[in-house]
Amino acid sequence: MNLPEKVTLIEVGPRDGFQFEKKIIPTALKLKIIHGLLDAGIRNIQVTSFVNPSIVPQMGDAEELIKLLPKNKDAVFSCLVLNEKGLRRAENAGIKNVEISISASDTHGRKNSGMSYETAFEKAKRMIGLGKSLGMNIRAGIQCAFGCAYEGIISADRVTHTAEIFAESGADIIAVSDTTGMANPVSVQNIIEHLIPVISNLPVVIHLHDTRGLGLANVFAALKCGISRFDTSLSGMGGCPFVPGAAGNISTEDTVNMLESMNINTGIEIHKVAACSLMLETFFNKKFPGKMHRLYSGNRYD
Amino acid sequence: MNLPEKVTLIEVGPRDGFQFEKKIIPTALKLKIIHGLLDAGIRNIQVTSFVNPSIVPQMGDAEELIKLLPKNKDAVFSCLVLNEKGLRRAENAGIKNVEISISASDTHGRKNSGMSYETAFEKAKRMIGLGKSLGMNIRAGIQCAFGCAYEGIISADRVTHTAEIFAESGADIIAVSDTTGMANPVSVQNIIEHLIPVISNLPVVIHLHDTRGLGLANVFAALKCGISRFDTSLSGMGGCPFVPGAAGNISTEDTVNMLESMNINTGIEIHKVAACSLMLETFFNKKFPGKMHRLYSGNRYD
Repeated sequence: MNLPEKVTLIEVGPRDGFQFEKKIIPTALKLKIIHGLLDAGIRNIQVTSFVNPSIVPQMGDAEELIKLLPKNKDAVFSCLVLNEKGLRRAENAGIKNVEISISASDTHGRKNSGMSYETAFEKAKRMIGLGKSLGMNIRAGIQCAFGCAYEGIISADRVTHTAEIFAESGADIIAVSDTTGMANPVSVQNIIEHLIPVISNLPVVIHLHDTRGLGLANVFAALKCGISRFDTSLSGMGGCPFVPGAAGNISTEDTVNMLESMNINTGIEIHKVAACSLMLETFFNKKFPGKMHRLYSGNRYD
Repeated sequence: MNLPEKVTLIEVGPRDGFQFEKKIIPTALKLKIIHGLLDAGIRNIQVTSFVNPSIVPQMGDAEELIKLLPKNKDAVFSCLVLNEKGLRRAENAGIKNVEISISASDTHGRKNSGMSYETAFEKAKRMIGLGKSLGMNIRAGIQCAFGCAYEGIISADRVTHTAEIFAESGADIIAVSDTTGMANPVSVQNIIEHLIPVISNLPVVIHLHDTRGLGLANVFAALKCGISRFDTSLSGMGGCPFVPGAAGNISTEDTVNMLESMNINTGIEIHKVAACSLMLETFFNKKFPGKMHRLYSGNRYD
């Protein structure tokens, strides 16, 4: 079977996972988790987003958090920004790896950001240009690339056109997101096969949600298309307010377990990630949807 | 992509799912669920097992349940038996589709049944012969085919040898079980590729547990090897007493969703299976691990 030997996981729990939680995590605990994730061997962490703190209070400590990040030379910390103001805040905070993101679905985009696809697309291109002019590494993301709860299936043309123009605009990496967990192995292969030829050999990250339980099946389909970068979130944290316990990113621990069991190297120690997940489950007094971290919770598996 | 057009799901919830639960389900509720599953389009249901009711009280109503099963002509009801006594009980109850099963792992088998692999294997061969002489359809199962919590990886030779002799002994169908949820897409492909050539074109069922979140990834890997029969359990019921909420069979609803979204026909209506799952969640006052049934629980997904 033709699979990559090594896969890079980008830990998005501290951004995509944390932002979903209402109870504010003290900055000190966020830092403890980030230290734990680094100690587990994770080298890429999306640590925060520069968004309006009155809308997402959980991200209100973005500047402070970045100031206090460990100084590991081989760690790559990144953040999400949604507009030019956020980009300027990221610049001022001194963070160089920045993700911008728009929805391939017009309806989802309008509900989420108040902008049509065309408006958001034009703005995103300008933000890529601005970010590059500021010396940043820009990851350009496409949400709802595999489907939208409002519009159903999104055309592969819309996704590939967006990616192509992002690449031409100077993006350093393209992120393709299954925001609603509607991807399946066939649609993953289809989008990737359309995308690869038009983005000038830029690296691609696949960002999957496990809303319908298809997360790892989609990882496997993407691996077979040569993809070797995935976003994951410790213990599958995150999710959708309308589906209690049902959504969330794919779990870091579960993804590492699948990859390592197939002899694909991740450099990540599951039990150390699981220790972070269990700390957060204690803090929130709830269970996150991933599977593997539970196997390290003191319960023996038989 | 080379995938089957149609897949048969064998609903094992009423056996593998129910047997795990301590609270006794009244026979009337079991029958209501079975009627609901038939109405959802499921045609193959493993309804019970003939085991010692002092050890598994949940299965104590096996004879009564079988007497009360609906008379749908196109429904295939089956049961599990672990020994000759169970086989005789199944015969007396008038059920013709019977599964026998042994573990490919010596240690697991000894702990589970008190027999070495060799003893269990000899007994299983005799049971296949006896079942065939009684005019039964015999499904011969191999547990721990993809790994064992005690022994680690199980050799493919052990699995294929067992399957080959089961086929020679007269089994009508071979079931390969990932009892501990340790399979991955690579090991699934490996076992299937070893197995197919030695079992004289007998049909193969893959029985997966989602203990580590790999269930649907493994289904996808098996589909690509031409497998078109899978055991599933409504809402992923079932599991391991040592991993609360973490194990269970792959969910019927989640599997149907993946298959249908890839244009593979199952003949099953998810929302009707989900209605059964939600009835059981109400009865047990707990959540089962599947994802899709929750999307029908009255919560809108966004």
